[in-house]
Amino acid sequence: MFSRMKVMVGGTFDPLHAGHRKLLGRSFELAGPGGCVVIGLTTDEFAGKKTHPVRPFGERKRDLERFIGERKFAASYRIEPLGDRYGPAPDEDFDALVVSEETLPVGMDINRIRQERGRKKVDIHQISCVLADDGRWISSTRIYRGEIDREGRVVR
Amino acid sequence: MFSRMKVMVGGTFDPLHAGHRKLLGRSFELAGPGGCVVIGLTTDEFAGKKTHPVRPFGERKRDLERFIGERKFAASYRIEPLGDRYGPAPDEDFDALVVSEETLPVGMDINRIRQERGRKKVDIHQISCVLADDGRWISSTRIYRGEIDREGRVVR
Repeated sequence: MFSRMKVMVGGTFDPLHAGHRKLLGRSFELAGPGGCVVIGLTTDEFAGKKTHPVRPFGERKRDLERFIGERKFAASYRIEPLGDRYGPAPDEDFDALVVSEETLPVGMDINRIRQERGRKKVDIHQISCVLADDGRWISSTRIYRGEIDREGRVVR
Repeated sequence: MFSRMKVMVGGTFDPLHAGHRKLLGRSFELAGPGGCVVIGLTTDEFAGKKTHPVRPFGERKRDLERFIGERKFAASYRIEPLGDRYGPAPDEDFDALVVSEETLPVGMDINRIRQERGRKKVDIHQISCVLADDGRWISSTRIYRGEIDREGRVVR
């Protein structure tokens, strides 16, 4: 088997909900034993453009590390500050990018830029969004609004 | 880890070149030990719409089985005749679809149809095309034209 891939994934991860856990779990699975996951975590400045408040970088990073530690994934990882939509993905040497339905266009952009710069395109793994109990996407915005909790349960 | 996914992939696989081997290898890897890969192999009638001749279904199936047997993948598989672009993918219960850069639009169509029919969308894994030594895609058409061999070496 091949495995041992270097996989990139990015996000704000606040709060870390069931959709994020699927995104991260799949990233580690794709990387495989001996592989590596590079997690781009949005900086406070970049995340500040969202419509809802976002907790500070350090707190979000700590929650990510706690989640990853609990799962005992076989691949190694590192968390890097992500200051814009693309981060180092247009130029760095890696194998696969994991995206959500929302961020697939960013992944396609990254491959277009890579090609323009004469770099190898990467594989793109798009996970389908995790649905809340009401059949709509789980998103941080919906959790922040108090519509659902981070497991996708409707808050009454 | 999760793994144990049911993965679908389709193609004509004639001749079975380095790009196909990447597509199939990744499908088995994603399915994981205990998972299953459903390979849609185009029927002679459907494949007959291609611009180049295609060997009969039975010969293409035998080559697929030989390749899979040699690799000793951990997931099980079955090969099904694929009589149109979508096959059973809009209606069948499965987890992930593996596509190439060329067939990503088919994957997006399948998810759109699934959603219209009230079915869960599937994850889509797009592998980047394998490049021949001349930096262009490996494709059956180019192999048939005698430009490259199935490993992507330029034929002189």
